[in-house]
Amino acid sequence: MARAIQLAERGLYTTMPNPRVGCVIADSEGNIVAEGWHQRAGLPHAEIEALSVAGDGARGATVYVTLEPCSHTGRTGPCADALIQSGVARVVYGMQDPNPAVSGRGLQKLKDAGIEVEGPLLEEQCRALNPGFIKRMTLGLPFVRCKSAMSLDGRTAMASGESKWVTGPAARADVQRLRARSCAIVTGVETVRFDNPNLNVRADEMALELLAAEQAAEVQPLRVIVDSKLRTPPKAFILQGDAPTLVATTAGADISRRDRLEQAGAEVLVLPADGKGRVDLSALLKELARRQCNEILVESGATLSGEFLYRGHVDELIVYMAPKLLGSTARPLFELPIARMGSVLPVTITDMRAVGHDWRITATTDIER
Amino acid sequence: MARAIQLAERGLYTTMPNPRVGCVIADSEGNIVAEGWHQRAGLPHAEIEALSVAGDGARGATVYVTLEPCSHTGRTGPCADALIQSGVARVVYGMQDPNPAVSGRGLQKLKDAGIEVEGPLLEEQCRALNPGFIKRMTLGLPFVRCKSAMSLDGRTAMASGESKWVTGPAARADVQRLRARSCAIVTGVETVRFDNPNLNVRADEMALELLAAEQAAEVQPLRVIVDSKLRTPPKAFILQGDAPTLVATTAGADISRRDRLEQAGAEVLVLPADGKGRVDLSALLKELARRQCNEILVESGATLSGEFLYRGHVDELIVYMAPKLLGSTARPLFELPIARMGSVLPVTITDMRAVGHDWRITATTDIER
Repeated sequence: MARAIQLAERGLYTTMPNPRVGCVIADSEGNIVAEGWHQRAGLPHAEIEALSVAGDGARGATVYVTLEPCSHTGRTGPCADALIQSGVARVVYGMQDPNPAVSGRGLQKLKDAGIEVEGPLLEEQCRALNPGFIKRMTLGLPFVRCKSAMSLDGRTAMASGESKWVTGPAARADVQRLRARSCAIVTGVETVRFDNPNLNVRADEMALELLAAEQAAEVQPLRVIVDSKLRTPPKAFILQGDAPTLVATTAGADISRRDRLEQAGAEVLVLPADGKGRVDLSALLKELARRQCNEILVESGATLSGEFLYRGHVDELIVYMAPKLLGSTARPLFELPIARMGSVLPVTITDMRAVGHDWRITATTDIER
Repeated sequence: MARAIQLAERGLYTTMPNPRVGCVIADSEGNIVAEGWHQRAGLPHAEIEALSVAGDGARGATVYVTLEPCSHTGRTGPCADALIQSGVARVVYGMQDPNPAVSGRGLQKLKDAGIEVEGPLLEEQCRALNPGFIKRMTLGLPFVRCKSAMSLDGRTAMASGESKWVTGPAARADVQRLRARSCAIVTGVETVRFDNPNLNVRADEMALELLAAEQAAEVQPLRVIVDSKLRTPPKAFILQGDAPTLVATTAGADISRRDRLEQAGAEVLVLPADGKGRVDLSALLKELARRQCNEILVESGATLSGEFLYRGHVDELIVYMAPKLLGSTARPLFELPIARMGSVLPVTITDMRAVGHDWRITATTDIER
């Protein structure tokens, strides 16, 4: 199963909106007969890939697969049927299908056909392959990752807004990889107006092998601007390039600006407003899940990031910490209006590692939903 | 030499104002004959400790010692003479005496007596044993360590000042150990007035073995309050307990307050003022070095810590990072008025480790002096 998880990880940047799945077929003596992984939506599932390599070698074999084989006919035929036809003796699965409506059905189909079924095995690791797919299937929401870069003293930019190169090239390459695994990148109109970022995936900046990087950059994530009043400049870089761009706005926006943005290639979507006339972030997240977004990356300033956090929408924080002090007049990491120690937001730091000269802190929020 | 360094570390909390030194004596086949370390000022140096264990076994042996043996008569006789008299054949040293006036003299004395001398060996690790002693001997200043505790978003306290329990018990025990290795703890009058800390070393809170903790707490570091206007309340906890307390002030202070503080047990010292009428920190550090302070720990709020940093006085930053978000209205880590990216203070992160649920970040400042 550990090998199957490694294989699934090869699809980290490419399977969306499908889950990352790996599969290993072993004979009765435990020798690996075939391997497979899901490479891209529309291409065969991991089990089918492995079965096609195994051929007759699948007969009487054990199949290790990170996710319960599907029982329904999607773009490809049901994997459970293919496994039954191949004559495998035993299927070990990592986790059940997260969709509660079909969970267990693929396993039942295998059992009904006389195949020995075992699992879940290494369930936590298998779940970690697909945080977005699982959350979308179970809650109808994407997995929200919020990325920030700060100095050792918790600052993101000077008071003037000057912020270039807070972190180094290794951290920036890491951000490229975070983008590439995401289905959408969300930012705010202030970031678009002041920093004018592209927010695209650039193969040559990912610090991956060229072929893997090119495959990862092939399908660009959707770029989303939270822009309640449609103040995005039509010439902004984020409206250019191959990646699609969605401008999420409210009915309170000046609708005459809509045409210019649409002419510049953006899709403009009117969403409900919150009490302050801003885009309702819950509605935006539901819409992104409806569009099959598994993982989304929030890359914005302190205001929008703070709002996502304050509303309890953030599943994972990624903070790049640069070895420098920006000082106390510089801008804060998150705009979070908390007045008392009793109201602080607890988080759990799940990973801490050096990325070049910077450090990457990964934390999950402990907010009850 | 690696073993000698381990031995030297046993004196981490107790040798001040002397350096931490370890010594191993090995016979011609490399077997360890004796070990020694310097335990406390007034007790024998590491070499004498080891020679007394070795007895006749020292004849023809090799001595590994982390610091060049002394050639002058201090509270104990010169170690170089004792080594010569013992008949050792070879001395391997970790680093030369940092005092430029005597550096190399001990080694020369050994060579003149026909002893083979080699080194420096593992010099960087040997130097790391005594950052304060080395800095005091070479620059006439103590090694300044600045300790802070912050949230993941770089905040130390709520805007109200409320700050209890930002970090957990393991981090607080780590701070006790930082205090115990320091010759002085420096804080500001604002911290004294609002947090009313003891700033002493408490054996039962060090998370060390009882005997080691009691030895470490036996000699309490000097407590220093930077208090330009003598506003320290005479009933403050910091004036109580066994540890001595120094109130550093300026000629601009209301001298009538001096008596009350002296009656409360404090020593009041008038130092030059800087351009803003505050205690000149350079003058304070020079005075502490004159009092044989090797390492000092700054434990204060953002203002005084920021001032130490801004003036380039800080050698090492220790930041405890708690897994929580305090929000953007909370207090900053350091009051550092920096306006442009070109003026940010670069640091080098030298260590990052989990301390209970918190993380400890150690960084050196890259300020040119």
